[in-house]
Amino acid sequence: MTNKTALVISAHAADFVWRCGGAIALHAEKGYDVTVACLSFGERGESARLWKEGKSLDEVKAIRRGEAEAAAEKLGVTRLECFDLGDYSLVLEKEDKYRLVDLIREVQPAFMMSHSQYDPYNTDHMYMTQVALECRMIAQAWGHNPGQKVLGAPQLYLFEPHQTEQMGWKPDTFLDITPVWDKKRAAMECMNGQVHLWDYYTRVAQQRANHFKRNSGGMSGGRDCHYAEGFQSIFPRTVDEL
Amino acid sequence: MTNKTALVISAHAADFVWRCGGAIALHAEKGYDVTVACLSFGERGESARLWKEGKSLDEVKAIRRGEAEAAAEKLGVTRLECFDLGDYSLVLEKEDKYRLVDLIREVQPAFMMSHSQYDPYNTDHMYMTQVALECRMIAQAWGHNPGQKVLGAPQLYLFEPHQTEQMGWKPDTFLDITPVWDKKRAAMECMNGQVHLWDYYTRVAQQRANHFKRNSGGMSGGRDCHYAEGFQSIFPRTVDEL
Amino acid sequence: MTNKTALVISAHAADFVWRCGGAIALHAEKGYDVTVACLSFGERGESARLWKEGKSLDEVKAIRRGEAEAAAEKLGVTRLECFDLGDYSLVLEKEDKYRLVDLIREVQPAFMMSHSQYDPYNTDHMYMTQVALECRMIAQAWGHNPGQKVLGAPQLYLFEPHQTEQMGWKPDTFLDITPVWDKKRAAMECMNGQVHLWDYYTRVAQQRANHFKRNSGGMSGGRDCHYAEGFQSIFPRTVDEL
Amino acid sequence: MTNKTALVISAHAADFVWRCGGAIALHAEKGYDVTVACLSFGERGESARLWKEGKSLDEVKAIRRGEAEAAAEKLGVTRLECFDLGDYSLVLEKEDKYRLVDLIREVQPAFMMSHSQYDPYNTDHMYMTQVALECRMIAQAWGHNPGQKVLGAPQLYLFEPHQTEQMGWKPDTFLDITPVWDKKRAAMECMNGQVHLWDYYTRVAQQRANHFKRNSGGMSGGRDCHYAEGFQSIFPRTVDEL
Amino acid sequence: MTNKTALVISAHAADFVWRCGGAIALHAEKGYDVTVACLSFGERGESARLWKEGKSLDEVKAIRRGEAEAAAEKLGVTRLECFDLGDYSLVLEKEDKYRLVDLIREVQPAFMMSHSQYDPYNTDHMYMTQVALECRMIAQAWGHNPGQKVLGAPQLYLFEPHQTEQMGWKPDTFLDITPVWDKKRAAMECMNGQVHLWDYYTRVAQQRANHFKRNSGGMSGGRDCHYAEGFQSIFPRTVDEL
Amino acid sequence: MTNKTALVISAHAADFVWRCGGAIALHAEKGYDVTVACLSFGERGESARLWKEGKSLDEVKAIRRGEAEAAAEKLGVTRLECFDLGDYSLVLEKEDKYRLVDLIREVQPAFMMSHSQYDPYNTDHMYMTQVALECRMIAQAWGHNPGQKVLGAPQLYLFEPHQTEQMGWKPDTFLDITPVWDKKRAAMECMNGQVHLWDYYTRVAQQRANHFKRNSGGMSGGRDCHYAEGFQSIFPRTVDEL
Repeated sequence: MTNKTALVISAHAADFVWRCGGAIALHAEKGYDVTVACLSFGERGESARLWKEGKSLDEVKAIRRGEAEAAAEKLGVTRLECFDLGDYSLVLEKEDKYRLVDLIREVQPAFMMSHSQYDPYNTDHMYMTQVALECRMIAQAWGHNPGQKVLGAPQLYLFEPHQTEQMGWKPDTFLDITPVWDKKRAAMECMNGQVHLWDYYTRVAQQRANHFKRNSGGMSGGRDCHYAEGFQSIFPRTVDEL
Repeated sequence: MTNKTALVISAHAADFVWRCGGAIALHAEKGYDVTVACLSFGERGESARLWKEGKSLDEVKAIRRGEAEAAAEKLGVTRLECFDLGDYSLVLEKEDKYRLVDLIREVQPAFMMSHSQYDPYNTDHMYMTQVALECRMIAQAWGHNPGQKVLGAPQLYLFEPHQTEQMGWKPDTFLDITPVWDKKRAAMECMNGQVHLWDYYTRVAQQRANHFKRNSGGMSGGRDCHYAEGFQSIFPRTVDEL
Repeated sequence: MTNKTALVISAHAADFVWRCGGAIALHAEKGYDVTVACLSFGERGESARLWKEGKSLDEVKAIRRGEAEAAAEKLGVTRLECFDLGDYSLVLEKEDKYRLVDLIREVQPAFMMSHSQYDPYNTDHMYMTQVALECRMIAQAWGHNPGQKVLGAPQLYLFEPHQTEQMGWKPDTFLDITPVWDKKRAAMECMNGQVHLWDYYTRVAQQRANHFKRNSGGMSGGRDCHYAEGFQSIFPRTVDEL
Repeated sequence: MTNKTALVISAHAADFVWRCGGAIALHAEKGYDVTVACLSFGERGESARLWKEGKSLDEVKAIRRGEAEAAAEKLGVTRLECFDLGDYSLVLEKEDKYRLVDLIREVQPAFMMSHSQYDPYNTDHMYMTQVALECRMIAQAWGHNPGQKVLGAPQLYLFEPHQTEQMGWKPDTFLDITPVWDKKRAAMECMNGQVHLWDYYTRVAQQRANHFKRNSGGMSGGRDCHYAEGFQSIFPRTVDEL
Repeated sequence: MTNKTALVISAHAADFVWRCGGAIALHAEKGYDVTVACLSFGERGESARLWKEGKSLDEVKAIRRGEAEAAAEKLGVTRLECFDLGDYSLVLEKEDKYRLVDLIREVQPAFMMSHSQYDPYNTDHMYMTQVALECRMIAQAWGHNPGQKVLGAPQLYLFEPHQTEQMGWKPDTFLDITPVWDKKRAAMECMNGQVHLWDYYTRVAQQRANHFKRNSGGMSGGRDCHYAEGFQSIFPRTVDEL
Repeated sequence: MTNKTALVISAHAADFVWRCGGAIALHAEKGYDVTVACLSFGERGESARLWKEGKSLDEVKAIRRGEAEAAAEKLGVTRLECFDLGDYSLVLEKEDKYRLVDLIREVQPAFMMSHSQYDPYNTDHMYMTQVALECRMIAQAWGHNPGQKVLGAPQLYLFEPHQTEQMGWKPDTFLDITPVWDKKRAAMECMNGQVHLWDYYTRVAQQRANHFKRNSGGMSGGRDCHYAEGFQSIFPRTVDEL
């Protein structure tokens, strides 16, 4: 019997660590095969320290790839797929989209993850989610590569952006990541170029834990939680009990 | 050991039947004790046929109460609490709100339900939800009737209004009510003054079943479903697995 | 055979002049009986000049009433109903609402008008619209004063507020008031305490005429128009041809 | 004297049937020349049954074209223009857009129709409307193919998507299609691959008829209506009477 | 010459500490006279620990007042005005509103502060802002207590709520409070019943400092900042230079 | 020492005149070097009069360029950069975007300006702002043309579109342009093909002056102002005093 699967679609190499590293590690522990697609290494736009040090483009990419691989290993990622399409701006041509569609179909994820739908600071992020929706649609089409197994209707969770309110991002789901916190912290510490974000995203996890507790009962029965992540759902849930 | 519980807060006597009768019956079958609070009988504003027949106010209220009780029985409602506060417009004074707070605390619901937050056709509906949020807050206050068990943080689901798009209501949860459809239909048929709505809300359930199926997998693995209800959540969920 | 009718619900005495004076005059010319309900005279909050002159409350109200009556006559208003409920803040008790319901039922308007739904500068305005919706609902209730003719489902148009963008007001209907412009200007000139607004609202009418022209065909067949008013509809239209 | 005209811009071959077949048939009966532009046949994404049967791409397209032509005939479409650009994802290059502009100018529509502006399930739909707005703008430009008759400012109506609330679609206009219902049903029945949608969209029409009735007077004077369609307008209306 | 002034309107005793304590301390240091209006002590709804200890209502109120006074002193508040109107739910009668209007006029604030406009967790908060807008309007009315100095048009800043995204609160202004951080922390530590919030709101200030830095230049010239607070403006600014 | 700088990004040649001519002239007077980037001349879509006169494309472009240069001179623009990329529809290829990035980096603007984020009448406008955000992001990337001075985090102001409410544009900043009004009017009068807009945008400036006055104190201390412009900010401000 095969494992359940999940697919994270990340515009830049490090996004999957800060924004959903806990979800990855938690589901990996639960037996999910988690695939991470990094469309770029964030080499041009999110590697300031390396450029200040005078690294070349190839060096920057190699370093970022190394960090992403190390972080993925800490988190228990089953497969890290680097598309290496370039960033700032990220652009997917038709064949790149089809490659992403192939991956979606191969993984057959129980759920997918990507960025917020609006981000005036980082247009790669909102573009990535637009493409994720487009590729999800293509993957569902019976006439695209007929004979392949088509995709069902997995949820697309939007993970937490920087400066949430500016992005119009509103979490509807808080996930307790306390059991895997050490893994997320370890993965973050693989990102040597963004040391200042280690504590920033630790605090994010602590604040979200407070929100978890409030929404699970608050001062009357709220479950304790020390670290959490928040997600916004694009699609409705289908349930048998509320 | 006590049962799980749920509380439906309905501005008018019939709302709980059309809008969440399936959820009530389903959870009753699952062993929930479901309490329904009817703040009014909808006697002035939602009983046109009876007034056209020349009934008096007391007669209208008695008939509407009878219908609500019959429907509640069909659905397996544990307790039907009629506040009899009048409709069009419904107004809750401080003591009425405290009565509702008492009920909330007594029930200690795992989840609550009420109307959409906007309804230009029916201001009772949006007022009801505003009051539901206010009373939920009071029920959580340790200083309100100290010594009583305070409320945790139950979800408030907004059930489906008439003309959803005009109300800005967006469902994020579809519940399969196929197993209890006969009960919902039977309950609707207790509402003799609104015969034209029996088929209307049957069609609503059929359309929502289509949406259930699409969101549970669509043409590739979507679970079959013949009748469903949709709900909008006010608060985020707290989960251990996505 | 009776005339068609319209009802304007204005929080303060002058609102109906600036915001829909053209619509009033135009429909009066078309044979509508137009009723204007002024819930207050705007005596406290919109009569700065009179207070600076040292007038008493009774004097201010008398002057404002006089101006409103003069303006109403210029516009061809059939009936000006002054509720005299006080402003800043305007409050309607249950009996005041019922008086407004009585008026709505008496008029049986083909359409109603009131303020924008949001106005952080003037909470009387948004309160007025909230009450207009509530009273419209009560007027539709067969159980409210049974035997009276109940209200149908007239459109509620929201007329133009000051600083439209701050109010979240978006016009969906532009009305050409060129044929009655002289009447609107004459009515505005009855408002002696707000001389600075005469030109302001003349310019509003000119800008809206530009918008009328653009939306009726622009540079290719757009109908000429020199003065217009804009309105936002609360309810959908029902038509036999698009 | 020439007839009035309308133009429907449909991403996939069947959209015009389910979403505005009634409007087409009704306006055709009123003497409009109605042109339908199908940018693709929906061959890859909306023909699951045919692919399951093992049809080839050309066969699927031929069948879908045939169904679209049969449906168009039932509805009284004057001209069905198939662009055959491919779906999932639909992409219009510059020359494709100019072809659509040419069509718009040739038709000189009194009104246009297309999809909702947001659709996370189907990115072709929202892309189509974005392109429709772009091409409407180009068609208005005096410097595009100078000498041609430029476009005026026709309304763009957004027809009803599947799962309206998820798309943020809000109808502001309900059209009574009772007189042509048989034609719409007959056209739907030309779509042999989507039999399950015949009843789905019949129920949609019945629900919209209920909304038509409520908004035309409700329980006091609401006009009877058995089948209706809803539309959202992009642009304001320009009128001489409210 | 008199000092510049500011007015904070806080539903419960502690809100002004967590949400804008830095702004208070900073402006106090700059020479502003800062007045804080606490409409209630948060005695019923925000004093869980005290109730668990078996305190009486009077004891709870006295303790909360003491904490508020101590915190106000740490922050350099010029005047702390406790209205003692009760919480959960907070209600202002006409005379209470007039008392707040009197205070606004007395203070003649250069800017005002209050809560977010939406808060489904705490209806006192959104009610407070609604009343703040109403009282601001009354304070501007020349006919309210004629002869008094009327209010100008001060900005109303909405300070940061708990769970910002759920409240639809979006900050448009970040204030560097690094110079007065010690005062804010000291004021927070006066709140003995909510020790768990000391670190929570310290982290909030650290995250907002990161946002301050990003918006003041990011990795290229962003000004360093260790603690900040965010605010949402209700009204537009008027400036002589962008 | 170098001057402060600003950059206006205008889809068509005339936009910078109508929409922010006052801001340009005012900041030029204050010593800013203001650069205006015109991505096209608006030759196809906004030059109806010239096409009606039978001008050729080259003639239209030459005339539009001449008008833009004349207007720029009146306003005190330091540098007018015409990209000449064509309009209706405007499209920027990768190299065009990089050219705009180069310009942004060269200018190092203290603030940027562009169009509203939504415009169903003119898709060039919303596309322009989308590209402006993308190029702002690239200009901030340390890995784009390493060695160049990267961009900080300048505000992006959205200037006033035509029919503001239809564009969802909400001004949060009003700028007093009274001191430079004559220059703006003179610049507008350079636009010989759009004479009807001279008075239209004069009235816009007068209405915004009224809003300026209301928001700077209204009837109690509002600063006088005869002409103003409004702007919407994309990013939060960072301040040391509220």
